[in-house]
Amino acid sequence: MESPWIGENHKHEPLLIVISGPSGVGKDSVVQSLKQRNQFLHFVITATSRAPRPEEVDGVDYFFVSNEEFQQMIKDDELLEHAVVYGEFKGIPKAQVRDALASGQDVIMRLDVQGASTIRALAPEAVLVFLTTTSEEELVQRLKARKTESPEKLKLRIETARQEYTRIEEFDYVVYNREGQLQQAVDVILAIIQAEHHQVKQRKVEL
Amino acid sequence: MESPWIGENHKHEPLLIVISGPSGVGKDSVVQSLKQRNQFLHFVITATSRAPRPEEVDGVDYFFVSNEEFQQMIKDDELLEHAVVYGEFKGIPKAQVRDALASGQDVIMRLDVQGASTIRALAPEAVLVFLTTTSEEELVQRLKARKTESPEKLKLRIETARQEYTRIEEFDYVVYNREGQLQQAVDVILAIIQAEHHQVKQRKVEL
Repeated sequence: MESPWIGENHKHEPLLIVISGPSGVGKDSVVQSLKQRNQFLHFVITATSRAPRPEEVDGVDYFFVSNEEFQQMIKDDELLEHAVVYGEFKGIPKAQVRDALASGQDVIMRLDVQGASTIRALAPEAVLVFLTTTSEEELVQRLKARKTESPEKLKLRIETARQEYTRIEEFDYVVYNREGQLQQAVDVILAIIQAEHHQVKQRKVEL
Repeated sequence: MESPWIGENHKHEPLLIVISGPSGVGKDSVVQSLKQRNQFLHFVITATSRAPRPEEVDGVDYFFVSNEEFQQMIKDDELLEHAVVYGEFKGIPKAQVRDALASGQDVIMRLDVQGASTIRALAPEAVLVFLTTTSEEELVQRLKARKTESPEKLKLRIETARQEYTRIEEFDYVVYNREGQLQQAVDVILAIIQAEHHQVKQRKVEL
């Protein structure tokens, strides 16, 4: 009888992890902190047609492209996912994700809820994380603290967040990013990644 | 529209976690270490008809009962699970598990592979962890190091382990207890517990 010892045959499948959730819950901060704490993850760089903010670097924070360039990428089917977010294009270059997974790296991407839903349809084996505040009130306070939001924009974001909440069943995990407890949220995401790698039936992502 | 914010409604469901795996992989050491590292878990105390070893305390390590008492517990349906292991009865008192879950505590139990399978049938929502060495050779070395095993007993344990390996698909997670890396195995189990509590669709155990 051949030895069925799993340790000798257990294939380590790289994960495709989507950090999503309503605008204002802290997706950027969580992803930044994950980057600092785990060197083995591949962080997807999003392409966007919006103008860079002063501190943002092309090829690091985003790939900044023109509206026309973005349209061409869509035509050439070079994007895994794309969406219009508050009037600007954002999208995930496909080759980048495939290459990272092929090299055995776990891939992390930050997406709005609609984008996460698109990834679910393309890659049912993706790990979808819904990041959130613990209450709507907490989200409103954070958006107000930004001071960049007009009352109309704020109202729109809250309405959108409410709609996004109704789609939480499409996600695998819910993680709370509590005020002043960013590292705890990151701890949970790292635990999720570790646990997923120990599933007997591993998720095999095919794009 | 009523707020659908999950943070306000998210019910924390206690988990029923089974640490299992072949004889000799280190289930006892892992459970001991879990006990030291997490005060919030309820560790099930098994009832057994075998004689206590010198260092074992009744009501702490096991409930030591006579063969007759054990038979009565079976008759009275007071056991969640029971099995004959190497000629001795072992079983899980039912009320203990229900009470702990009802109080909101996660419950940990250590069981052989057949026992884990029984729990799966009774409580499909249980979290089943298959603890293992990374190779059959490593298991043989550990069993030999015990020096309490006769060659016949050793052979029986290895044969049993091989059969148990064929049932790994019944489990949720596989965790390696590598030589000298007990704490890493415990880390993984704690990560699994943390991740499971953040599942959108939580496991609701009903016994």
